[in-house]
Amino acid sequence: MALPPEFHDIAKRVNNWGRWGEADELGTLNLITADVVRAAAATIRAGRRVPLALPLQQDGVQTGMIPGRVNPLHTMVAVNLEMFGPGTVATSDDAVTMGLQAATHWDGLTHVSHGGKLYNGRPADSITAHGGAAFHGIEKAGPLVSRGVLLDVARARGVDRLEGEHAVTPEDLEAAEELAGTEVRSGDIVLVRTGQIQHYLAGDKHAYAFPSPGLSVRTPEWFHARDVAAVANDTLTFEIFPPEIADLWLPVHALDLVEMGMLQGQNWNLEELSQACAEEGRYAFLLSAPPEPFTGGTGAPVAPVAIL
Amino acid sequence: MALPPEFHDIAKRVNNWGRWGEADELGTLNLITADVVRAAAATIRAGRRVPLALPLQQDGVQTGMIPGRVNPLHTMVAVNLEMFGPGTVATSDDAVTMGLQAATHWDGLTHVSHGGKLYNGRPADSITAHGGAAFHGIEKAGPLVSRGVLLDVARARGVDRLEGEHAVTPEDLEAAEELAGTEVRSGDIVLVRTGQIQHYLAGDKHAYAFPSPGLSVRTPEWFHARDVAAVANDTLTFEIFPPEIADLWLPVHALDLVEMGMLQGQNWNLEELSQACAEEGRYAFLLSAPPEPFTGGTGAPVAPVAIL
Amino acid sequence: MALPPEFHDIAKRVNNWGRWGEADELGTLNLITADVVRAAAATIRAGRRVPLALPLQQDGVQTGMIPGRVNPLHTMVAVNLEMFGPGTVATSDDAVTMGLQAATHWDGLTHVSHGGKLYNGRPADSITAHGGAAFHGIEKAGPLVSRGVLLDVARARGVDRLEGEHAVTPEDLEAAEELAGTEVRSGDIVLVRTGQIQHYLAGDKHAYAFPSPGLSVRTPEWFHARDVAAVANDTLTFEIFPPEIADLWLPVHALDLVEMGMLQGQNWNLEELSQACAEEGRYAFLLSAPPEPFTGGTGAPVAPVAIL
Amino acid sequence: MALPPEFHDIAKRVNNWGRWGEADELGTLNLITADVVRAAAATIRAGRRVPLALPLQQDGVQTGMIPGRVNPLHTMVAVNLEMFGPGTVATSDDAVTMGLQAATHWDGLTHVSHGGKLYNGRPADSITAHGGAAFHGIEKAGPLVSRGVLLDVARARGVDRLEGEHAVTPEDLEAAEELAGTEVRSGDIVLVRTGQIQHYLAGDKHAYAFPSPGLSVRTPEWFHARDVAAVANDTLTFEIFPPEIADLWLPVHALDLVEMGMLQGQNWNLEELSQACAEEGRYAFLLSAPPEPFTGGTGAPVAPVAIL
Repeated sequence: MALPPEFHDIAKRVNNWGRWGEADELGTLNLITADVVRAAAATIRAGRRVPLALPLQQDGVQTGMIPGRVNPLHTMVAVNLEMFGPGTVATSDDAVTMGLQAATHWDGLTHVSHGGKLYNGRPADSITAHGGAAFHGIEKAGPLVSRGVLLDVARARGVDRLEGEHAVTPEDLEAAEELAGTEVRSGDIVLVRTGQIQHYLAGDKHAYAFPSPGLSVRTPEWFHARDVAAVANDTLTFEIFPPEIADLWLPVHALDLVEMGMLQGQNWNLEELSQACAEEGRYAFLLSAPPEPFTGGTGAPVAPVAIL
Repeated sequence: MALPPEFHDIAKRVNNWGRWGEADELGTLNLITADVVRAAAATIRAGRRVPLALPLQQDGVQTGMIPGRVNPLHTMVAVNLEMFGPGTVATSDDAVTMGLQAATHWDGLTHVSHGGKLYNGRPADSITAHGGAAFHGIEKAGPLVSRGVLLDVARARGVDRLEGEHAVTPEDLEAAEELAGTEVRSGDIVLVRTGQIQHYLAGDKHAYAFPSPGLSVRTPEWFHARDVAAVANDTLTFEIFPPEIADLWLPVHALDLVEMGMLQGQNWNLEELSQACAEEGRYAFLLSAPPEPFTGGTGAPVAPVAIL
Repeated sequence: MALPPEFHDIAKRVNNWGRWGEADELGTLNLITADVVRAAAATIRAGRRVPLALPLQQDGVQTGMIPGRVNPLHTMVAVNLEMFGPGTVATSDDAVTMGLQAATHWDGLTHVSHGGKLYNGRPADSITAHGGAAFHGIEKAGPLVSRGVLLDVARARGVDRLEGEHAVTPEDLEAAEELAGTEVRSGDIVLVRTGQIQHYLAGDKHAYAFPSPGLSVRTPEWFHARDVAAVANDTLTFEIFPPEIADLWLPVHALDLVEMGMLQGQNWNLEELSQACAEEGRYAFLLSAPPEPFTGGTGAPVAPVAIL
Repeated sequence: MALPPEFHDIAKRVNNWGRWGEADELGTLNLITADVVRAAAATIRAGRRVPLALPLQQDGVQTGMIPGRVNPLHTMVAVNLEMFGPGTVATSDDAVTMGLQAATHWDGLTHVSHGGKLYNGRPADSITAHGGAAFHGIEKAGPLVSRGVLLDVARARGVDRLEGEHAVTPEDLEAAEELAGTEVRSGDIVLVRTGQIQHYLAGDKHAYAFPSPGLSVRTPEWFHARDVAAVANDTLTFEIFPPEIADLWLPVHALDLVEMGMLQGQNWNLEELSQACAEEGRYAFLLSAPPEPFTGGTGAPVAPVAIL
């Protein structure tokens, strides 16, 4: 079963292979220039810092539906250990096992492939169990900072959260852009709020997982047209799930990551940010969101912070 | 064996217990006000972003000297898995096991205790294998952003890196402050460069570990006087190791974390930042360094970024 | 809240502290003599080998009800890696993270404590995050082999499996002993079949977990009278759960492990063995069940085999 | 670079593909019949049990030379946790992360491949990061019990341990067989003692790893002629390392696992067994060594026990 023609039509229009050279491993992160960062710095007025990461804990968002993507298991290797003798300063140390895509994370460009290809035409089998991603590993993304823009689709539509069957369309993004009072532009990191994460925050991780509102297969072209650097949202699946087109699974992943070379963020908690932006009357900010630099990672946890 | 009187003398002078209330879990992070963050934003001129984290990989800085503090083990749970059938979009996923203090990290306030006490007088046995740190868990540190100041002690002393037996003193910090051309002030995060991490970067992790230059037991008073919010450096042990005073192990840890309630950062790669600051002729910047919010963590990995 | 008098009454009657010396770390395993093993060998007639371990996989018996006791996460660190160059012999390697008590396992003598005490009066705080169990670690149990006797309580009662509220009593054990046609004697390892694991094998791990039939608080005295070396069964909780006596949680664990110093096995799959014993008309066999010798482990996985 | 003709010549002579049917996943374990097990039971005379596993601990045999094959990391998830309230029975639980081939283990039939093939002609790419080994997973090996024979090559040669450059030849095996006083026959599990593990037991894991005595490329034909069921020894590499033939890496692995379909065991501690066999004047015993049944595992830890 191949991907359908309508996928390939869009793919051609958003494809960035070769745009930044044959050896490029950054994709749309190339669009974050020094100017973009300076402009981002200029948006800081209140000195307000909003965290966007969920706590990392065993009671995380994973339900077991995706084998191997395990919630963080936090264990102790020392608790008040007086390693230099009785009465000395004691130390406590911890260890963790977790899926790199289990919690608030960035999908790396290698998180999906199609037709045996990764972004920029690299072969999919360059990912191995031994070394992970030989090209486009998440460590290549570097110190990810840019202007962030919250597109609060739920608020723009006057609801607390979108329904599970709601595919976020370019029209939704534009309505939210209008609410934001700023135009999305080259190098921006766009945060799309659906409100779906409220299910998890209320203790229902199954309702959070599925069905889930999310980005429509029509959005990659919109992001491509605006030259967005990266996109994150507050859902487990990023794109609407189950998908809009029968039997076309994860098309947005394939378009964003493989064709455009654009990072995707998932399980970002945008609730406090939504409140803060509404209070400030501003939806643009400096966003700092460097992925933990796991060598060869196909994704990585991130503790993003929006500075308004 | 109890801690010696000279430790307790200093401890009295830098103690912050109760300063921000009995229930406080933030310690000196309370000093990071909105004004501090606004001033930090104003330091951004070049739009230059400098990463300060080491790559997370099995060939990390740990040598096995500290049992349980294991380098990251990166494994794959799926490589190009066509989970929806042949020819569909394929996904790759990874998992990791690592010590929370193994790589570039923040020590949480609970990473050490002495006399059965943690910061703010909390009992050390509030840390358990089951839940980790019940008070002052690293997840409480939140979205850590402030003005960062690089105190490039190695450069100020005209050397590539300090010798292993060099205890960084308040005088060293002041010389570096002069080089920096800015005064360390309330709410700052101070990054102290020794150059020691060059050993690791050159492939010699044993030389990196020990003997190591690091902060003198005299520095906590200096940080306390300046009301610094947090301190990080480019060594495995943070403080000089072996210690300055025979049989007084980890006194700086005990003073910073337990008495002052001040986070410490270790294994931060400050080499590129040293170069960038020298080139820009500026040593202050916006520093974004939110720890990964592990619930109950006594420390956490961080991917810090300096924005100049 | 202390443990009730009726617990302490039984505890006194089954207590083995000091029975094998103050330094003893083996408990009732001392009862497995060379004679016992020789007699066990004599039971082998058919040369039939029956495995008693569940497969170790992510879809294991754990439901998440017990935090930290995670099902095995099997990951790959190399798949057909030609580490010596193209065309050479390729290797595949795996890693695992799991709770030591997650699957088919032995509870070590330190798995529970009460009143701050472990078996033989050792202090409970001799278990630490750093080293695990300093006394009675599971590695001390050694090469555990003895005569095994299946007490097939379900079959003796003429049912496929016992109901969830069924506490297995000494009378049940004696009825099953009669079916077995052999008397339980000193040094035996007794396997008690309830049939409860059928729930898990049929895909319903929640029904398996709870409510669960299991050993009654009256059974430790029976095992003590017979000088049994160890007991295992086919449930998650070993003892009836919820408990027979309101607010008296895990009394059988406390009596078996702490008072008697007798290992307990859980999640043993006794279905094939039940069939094999019925076919052979014999319920005694050589049982080989050495725990994986994790130093300081409070329990360990085991892959037991019954040889008939 | 292909494998040399001399490899392929031997391969043809020892190949078992199709011998037990096209769907076979057991290989030479098919040779362990009920008769073999009955005969093994008859060897038990003293009731003596000898453990053959190394302790599972962070200070294990791995040196870091083989990336990803990590020594066991033992951590605690609960220490004396009174989960049902103060004064109730308290529980302690542990977790572990480890390489399946890190300690005393069986190599599964899929641990190596050559020319894209596994045992019985299965394609090597049937091993995936997602599910591990789809064919011949270690869980298929089942309840591995047979007659064990110690071929104590070191003792037969009158040395404590063989030198690092000693390739164990068929002649060595026959000399040890003579010492053993029994002939190796169909279905036996052969344990070959070199004494090399003394290096590890004395604290020198680097000397243990390399150079190492081990099985010669001439031994697979000998094992094939005797219809041996499985072979284990007391080295890290199983076969002599570095190899006998320049640039022919791991030929014994490829012959045993891929061509013959015969399990290999490594890091078995045969020191106590050597002593016991010499004392008893018998080198045959019942060996119980069921691998931990990790679904899809390309190897697994084992806690073998010899019963004499």
